[in-house]
Amino acid sequence: MIFLLSFTNSAATRLVSLSKFPILRTPQFSTMSTNFFKSHAFAGNPIKLRTPKSTDPFSPPSALKTLKNLLLGNTHEPHSPNFKILPFRKGRPLAGSVRESNEPNWHLGWLSFEDCKAFLENSEVNLSEDTLVYLGSDSEGDGVYVVYWGIDVTEAGNGLVKELGGKQFCFVELRTLMVATDWENASSMGQLAIAGHARSLLEWHTASRFCGFCGGKNILIDAGRRKQCSNELCKKKIYPRVDPVVIMLVIDKENDRALLSRQSRFVPRMWSCLAGFMEPGESLEEAVRRETWEETGIEVGQVVYHSSQPWPVGPSSMPCQLMVGFFAYAKSLDINVDKEELEDAKWHSREDVKKALTIAEYKKAQKTASGKVDQMCKGVERGQSLSSDFNVESGELAPMFIPGPFAIANHLISSWVNGVESQLASSFSNL
Amino acid sequence: MIFLLSFTNSAATRLVSLSKFPILRTPQFSTMSTNFFKSHAFAGNPIKLRTPKSTDPFSPPSALKTLKNLLLGNTHEPHSPNFKILPFRKGRPLAGSVRESNEPNWHLGWLSFEDCKAFLENSEVNLSEDTLVYLGSDSEGDGVYVVYWGIDVTEAGNGLVKELGGKQFCFVELRTLMVATDWENASSMGQLAIAGHARSLLEWHTASRFCGFCGGKNILIDAGRRKQCSNELCKKKIYPRVDPVVIMLVIDKENDRALLSRQSRFVPRMWSCLAGFMEPGESLEEAVRRETWEETGIEVGQVVYHSSQPWPVGPSSMPCQLMVGFFAYAKSLDINVDKEELEDAKWHSREDVKKALTIAEYKKAQKTASGKVDQMCKGVERGQSLSSDFNVESGELAPMFIPGPFAIANHLISSWVNGVESQLASSFSNL
Repeated sequence: MIFLLSFTNSAATRLVSLSKFPILRTPQFSTMSTNFFKSHAFAGNPIKLRTPKSTDPFSPPSALKTLKNLLLGNTHEPHSPNFKILPFRKGRPLAGSVRESNEPNWHLGWLSFEDCKAFLENSEVNLSEDTLVYLGSDSEGDGVYVVYWGIDVTEAGNGLVKELGGKQFCFVELRTLMVATDWENASSMGQLAIAGHARSLLEWHTASRFCGFCGGKNILIDAGRRKQCSNELCKKKIYPRVDPVVIMLVIDKENDRALLSRQSRFVPRMWSCLAGFMEPGESLEEAVRRETWEETGIEVGQVVYHSSQPWPVGPSSMPCQLMVGFFAYAKSLDINVDKEELEDAKWHSREDVKKALTIAEYKKAQKTASGKVDQMCKGVERGQSLSSDFNVESGELAPMFIPGPFAIANHLISSWVNGVESQLASSFSNL
Repeated sequence: MIFLLSFTNSAATRLVSLSKFPILRTPQFSTMSTNFFKSHAFAGNPIKLRTPKSTDPFSPPSALKTLKNLLLGNTHEPHSPNFKILPFRKGRPLAGSVRESNEPNWHLGWLSFEDCKAFLENSEVNLSEDTLVYLGSDSEGDGVYVVYWGIDVTEAGNGLVKELGGKQFCFVELRTLMVATDWENASSMGQLAIAGHARSLLEWHTASRFCGFCGGKNILIDAGRRKQCSNELCKKKIYPRVDPVVIMLVIDKENDRALLSRQSRFVPRMWSCLAGFMEPGESLEEAVRRETWEETGIEVGQVVYHSSQPWPVGPSSMPCQLMVGFFAYAKSLDINVDKEELEDAKWHSREDVKKALTIAEYKKAQKTASGKVDQMCKGVERGQSLSSDFNVESGELAPMFIPGPFAIANHLISSWVNGVESQLASSFSNL
C-alpha cells in the first residue's frame, strides 16, 4: 500500500482552458503538477470553501432566522444579507446563456427571493424553510453578503418551465453544463461546482425523506444541511451521504501499457479507467485491488494515490460520489473480463493511448454543448441528447477516445501518458 | 461539524507492542513503508479480499441457496460449504479467550449453523435468510470452503447471554478487542478486521430498515450485502453506507512543529490530529483545508495523502467511516480554536511529540485489555469500563500521549516524528 499526494493550492482555484489544459499540451511536469490538480470539475466551489461562524449574519443559523422573517413579510432586517435562489427540476439546475465575444457562455439561473416567490405562487411548491436549502455565502464587497439557496421545483409542473422559458431560462442536465463549461473561465468553473454541490444536497433530500431506523418522516435542520427524524422516540440525526468510489489506472510497467476498459453503457469508441464503489470494512487501497481483480482478474501490487474529485452527476439515488483516483501496478497480466460488469478490457500501449488523448476534440465538444445550452435557453431546443456531443467526428475517426478533462479518468490517463505517473511512483520506490 | 475518532473516555484503550511497531522503532523508511501500511487495524480482512464469482459454491448467491436448503432441513447438499456464524449484540461481537504461552489471546465466537440454531431456538431471533448476512468465504484447503455469516441477536435478550456465558463466550465491545489485539499475531489482526466488517454491515442493516425515498420496508438482497425497498412502486436498491472522514496532521514546516488538538470527550492528556466528515461537493483536499480552517482558523496550502483506514468503531448511526489520512502544510500559524468543536489546539515541537509517542505504553494497554477480555469470557467481569486503561501510570505521568497504533492518527504523527513525512513531501516538491 502506498501513498502520495495532491497538490491543490489553496482552494478557491478554478481552471484552465482546454487549450491551456497542461496535461494535453505541455509535457513538462513542473507546469502540470500545479495546474493539473487545480483542475477537477466540481471541485473549487467558491461559496463552499468555508462554513461561516454561526454568529455571522450569513451563516446557516443566522440566514435561516432572516429567511423566517422574510417569509413573515418582515423584509427590512438590519444586516440582512441578499438572498439568491437556484431552482432545480428533476436534478437539473436552472441556467441561462449569454453570448460573449461571439461565443455562448452559460450561467446559473439565480432568482431573487421575490422573483422566486412570484414564480412559485400558483404552484405545488412552497417557498419555505422546509424547501429552501442553504448552499453557502459570498462577499460582494463593502460588507455586503449574498446567501445562496437551492430549491427543488420538480413538483411545480410544466407551467413554471414555460414561465421561466419566457425569461430565457431553461433547466439543463448537469452533465451538459459540465461538458459546456469553458475551462478558461473561472466564473463558469465556480458555477459548475456550485451547481454540483446544490444537486448533491437536493437529491440527498429526496433520498432521505424518511428515517432508515424507524420509517418516521425526516425534517430539515441546520438550514437544510442536515436532517432529523421527526419521531420523538427516534430523533436520529441524518447527514448527507457521500459515496467514495475508487478509480484506478492499472499499469503494466514492464511492457509500458495501461489497462483501459469499456462498459456497455459507454458511447461508442470510449474507453476509460476501472472504477468501483467501496465496501464497508476495507481501505481505499484494498478496494483498488479487489475491484481490479473482480472486474479483470488482474492482481495489483503497489497502489499510488493521485487526487480526488466530487462527482455529483451520477444517478439521483447516489447524489454525491467521491472519486478517489489511483495508479495501480499490475502483478499479473492475463485479463479475465467479468462480463456482468464490463463489455471489454484491454492493455493499450502508451502510443495508442496518447493518440486517443490527442484526437479527442474536447474543445469542440465543449463548444457544441455550449451552443446547445444557448439554443435551449432561447427555446429553440427543449430535448437533450448528449451522446452526439461525444461523437466528435472531424474527418477520420480515431479507434478510441477517453473521457474529457472534466473526469478524473482523463487526469489519471494523461498523467501516465506524460510521464507524471512514473515520476510519482519512482519517488516512492526510492524512499 | 466535528469528528470522532477513536478516543473517547468510554472507548477502549490503546494497544500494541511499542517495541514491535516499526514506525516507532526503525528509522529506515524501507522497512517502515512495508510494515507500516500493513498495520492499519480493521484493514486486511482475510475473507473480504475478493468477492467470489457468482458461480462458485461459496459465493453470496450460491451460499444463500445452500442456506435456504439448510433452513428447510436438506443438510446434505453436494459441494455444500461449511457455515460459521458470528453473533453480535448491541454492536458487540461474540468473543472467547484462550491462554497461549501464559498470555490471553482473544478470538471471535464463531458458532456452527446447528449450535446457533440451538442457541436461538427459544428467542425472538429467527435464524433465516432475512437475518443472516454474508461476510465472506475462505478456503480450509483440499477444496473445502467455509462461508462466514453475521447475525444481530440483540433482540434475543439476556437468556442468550447467560447461555453463551456458560460456554465461556462473551459479547465484547469492538474497541476493547481493537486495543487487546496483538499486532504480532496475524490471525488476531485478521479476526479484528472480520469483526469490523461484520459490525459495519449489521449496524447498516439496523440503520436502513426503511426506505429513505418512500418509507417502505427494506428487504435483504444479495445475501444481505445490499437491500431493496419492498414497495413495488419504489423498489430502490440500497447500498451500504461508507462515510469518508479526512484526518490530517497540520505541519508548521518552518518551525518544525505539528498541530495537535483535544476534544472534550478525549481522556485526559490525550492529543490527536484534526479530523472531519466530508461535505457533498468537495474533494478530499478541499475538506482538509475547510476543516482545518473551521476548527483552528489555520490556512493550509499543500496537502499530501498518506493512507486510509476503515473505521467501524464509531457510533452505530455511522456504521462505517473511512478515515483518509493527510499531511497538511500550514500557510498561517495563528490558532483560533472553535470551542464548539475542540477543547484546545496547540503547536507542538517534534521533540515533545516524540516523547508523547515514547512514553505512552501501548503494549501495557494491550495486555490490560486482553486480560479484561479473558476475565469477561470467564465470567469474572461482565461490566466494561475501560477508561482506567488509559491512565497507564508507570512512574512519572507524561504531559500528553497520542492514540495507539490502531488509529491512523498514530501513523500520521509517527511518520512526521520519524522524518517519513518530509521525505514524501520533498519528493513531490522536486517533481
